[in-house]
Amino acid sequence: MKKNAYLKLLEYVKSNNIKEFRNIIFNMNEIDIAILINDLDLEIAVVFFRMLPKEISVNVFSHLDIEKQKIIIDAISNKEINNIIEKLYTDDAVDLIEELPANVVKRVLDNASNETRNIINEYLKYPENSAGSIMTSEYIGLKKDMTVKESFSYIRKYGENKETLYMCYVMDNTRNLLGVVSLQTLIMNDDKININDIMDTNIIQVNTEDSKETVINIFNKYKLLTLPVVDKENRLVGIITADDIVDVAEEEVTEDFEKMAAMLPSENSYLKTSIFELSKNRIPWLMVLMISSMLTGSILSKYEEAFSVLPLLVTFIPMLTDTGGNAGSQSSTMIIRGIALGEIKNSDWIKVLFKEFGVSIICGFALGVVNFLRLMLQYPGQKLLVLTVVLSLFVTVIIAKVIGGLLPIGAKLLKLDPAIMAAPLITTIVDALSLIIYFYIAMNLLQLS
Amino acid sequence: MKKNAYLKLLEYVKSNNIKEFRNIIFNMNEIDIAILINDLDLEIAVVFFRMLPKEISVNVFSHLDIEKQKIIIDAISNKEINNIIEKLYTDDAVDLIEELPANVVKRVLDNASNETRNIINEYLKYPENSAGSIMTSEYIGLKKDMTVKESFSYIRKYGENKETLYMCYVMDNTRNLLGVVSLQTLIMNDDKININDIMDTNIIQVNTEDSKETVINIFNKYKLLTLPVVDKENRLVGIITADDIVDVAEEEVTEDFEKMAAMLPSENSYLKTSIFELSKNRIPWLMVLMISSMLTGSILSKYEEAFSVLPLLVTFIPMLTDTGGNAGSQSSTMIIRGIALGEIKNSDWIKVLFKEFGVSIICGFALGVVNFLRLMLQYPGQKLLVLTVVLSLFVTVIIAKVIGGLLPIGAKLLKLDPAIMAAPLITTIVDALSLIIYFYIAMNLLQLS
Repeated sequence: MKKNAYLKLLEYVKSNNIKEFRNIIFNMNEIDIAILINDLDLEIAVVFFRMLPKEISVNVFSHLDIEKQKIIIDAISNKEINNIIEKLYTDDAVDLIEELPANVVKRVLDNASNETRNIINEYLKYPENSAGSIMTSEYIGLKKDMTVKESFSYIRKYGENKETLYMCYVMDNTRNLLGVVSLQTLIMNDDKININDIMDTNIIQVNTEDSKETVINIFNKYKLLTLPVVDKENRLVGIITADDIVDVAEEEVTEDFEKMAAMLPSENSYLKTSIFELSKNRIPWLMVLMISSMLTGSILSKYEEAFSVLPLLVTFIPMLTDTGGNAGSQSSTMIIRGIALGEIKNSDWIKVLFKEFGVSIICGFALGVVNFLRLMLQYPGQKLLVLTVVLSLFVTVIIAKVIGGLLPIGAKLLKLDPAIMAAPLITTIVDALSLIIYFYIAMNLLQLS
Repeated sequence: MKKNAYLKLLEYVKSNNIKEFRNIIFNMNEIDIAILINDLDLEIAVVFFRMLPKEISVNVFSHLDIEKQKIIIDAISNKEINNIIEKLYTDDAVDLIEELPANVVKRVLDNASNETRNIINEYLKYPENSAGSIMTSEYIGLKKDMTVKESFSYIRKYGENKETLYMCYVMDNTRNLLGVVSLQTLIMNDDKININDIMDTNIIQVNTEDSKETVINIFNKYKLLTLPVVDKENRLVGIITADDIVDVAEEEVTEDFEKMAAMLPSENSYLKTSIFELSKNRIPWLMVLMISSMLTGSILSKYEEAFSVLPLLVTFIPMLTDTGGNAGSQSSTMIIRGIALGEIKNSDWIKVLFKEFGVSIICGFALGVVNFLRLMLQYPGQKLLVLTVVLSLFVTVIIAKVIGGLLPIGAKLLKLDPAIMAAPLITTIVDALSLIIYFYIAMNLLQLS
């Protein structure tokens, strides 16, 4: 929105000019309104929120940061709380309840209807990383002997507060999921046709216990709008909608980026995370990697003699370890990403091995040639030294790429997180190996010992 | 699907048993069928495809790899080509045409209706990375003076081949976009109500020239199912659907991962990319970084004297450069991801500077303390050496984090790609700086010169 309109809005909030305020608000998207409130100071945010028209306030609320939600819940009346908790979709209500302090939770649930309270309590039981924890309960359920016409009447009657009408779920009397029928199918079929004859019985579904990652991969593979969630007895307990998956998927990718750059995943966006919190996420891995690179350093101390005889040897160390690290993290990154997208499976490890071996020979050769030419120009007399460096480089690239390719798959086999195996760890391993290779070759070729 | 059913399917293909083949196929999801065909050898893939029932063959076709699409187009009759090109959504048809060799393109377009050919030719004009290049033309357009009932009749009549019915677009006679109305809104309103009274005029839209990144960010921000694309005169020319965005968004993220691990982005998934192609993507950056780390090496050669006097100095180099590199890429990764998600803007650079400075002091201090304790145990007599290492580490972490935080924003200001500024480049820069700092401090504290 334009800065001008934004300033006017704030002015109307301060002067409590509801009429002019709502004139602007009515032409705004609810998500933009939420973004705006998220940027305000707490006090004015509450006033702003309470001036919103009832029709949109719950939708705006569901898009607010948890801090703003907390402060608003604290500030509003029991009646307003009732309005919010009844109209929020179950998934948003559960997210809110999970973040509130116990006494506030009690106040919120006391102001909810029995039905709402029961559903929320039921949903709170699902473990944090599961499909159950992100599903919602507002879906359309149909019976298989309904006609298209009856279905439309049903949808018109009960559709008001449903998160989506576009996919309807057909169940029997015990809530067993029998099929799905899209609103698109309903609309393209005759009034008299039976749901039984047009519903799709190849149902793509997940179990409440399935992980978020599984849910994301299924959404992406089948390009779904909604995904039904069933319990162990195949009874429908909720649905997950594509719009809720967007945030979950972005968080998963961000987590992978963070892990691959040796950080603990953060809960909030960068600008909203405190310096202390950021440091807490970064120090553990920095510490681990610092200590392991000390070990690498101690490898060097074994060869002190070699480089006190030939100090020139030291100047090639950064080139060797950096190139090895880069070559290795190229490989590990591609494999980790492939695993995350479900493209690379454990059984593909032989293919990966062959591919990385082939690629590393080509890369190692290309780098070796350039290095050779450059060193022959700079140190024309020292053929054995040049050979030592070029040979070490070649072997380092091969080892780096093969390890980089296999390490993430190995981690997955051991049920560890492949992303942790990325750049930082591979760098440390390759550093140590490249130094050992380098000095082994140097000692032998240059007869330094 | 189960391995058993899979083997049976192949058997039926080989024995040309269409009836049994289709019995299995009818219970399968179209995307699973496409995945199956993508894994087959070319010859049997064609036979498999031609045995599919007509109702689903075009949908399956749209999910095939381009190689399989090419070979199928080559193998089928003009009539079959006509069926495919007429029924494919425009975005899929355009993707296909762009990949086919010229003579095949001619054959395909010759077998398309005039209308289809004109639309395809129109769509082919949009630049590769633009919203225009991923939109499709199969949407429902309504007039504002239609009633809900008339809209339903219109949708029922013309909805058959539309990619989505869930969002309908209201235009005037010159195709100016006036508003949008969802099928959900239509269904929840009375037959007699006018579209004009229920359409949403706060339209979220993009221009044909907008970039894919913009499109993805808008989709994610507003959790859309579809997004209308307009030309410079605000005339509706196409829509982008959420299911098409899934792949585009995954590709964008994969590209970021590849760039951050110093690779040129690849077009295909890892297992489908040849060894030669993989090498071609990896060598350029490896080469650039190898050459720049040679420069780092040449910094070392300036201090040959120092470490021939005190060879122990060399053993701390890996710890310093690695920790600096890790600290820097932690920062750059978070900033690059924040920029990609639209959370960090250029104007935030001061906030980033303060945050990174604060974080780096805390991290540098924590690492320094551990390092100090460890070195005091190992080299109890050499206080000045210990001080040199710890001080160098502290300064390196600060510089690495500040540069890591600001470099991506600087790149964005210069209209360069922030992802390129990640781990590899930051590592090289920090390597060089940390060595200079280290030897500067060493020379002065230890008086080695």
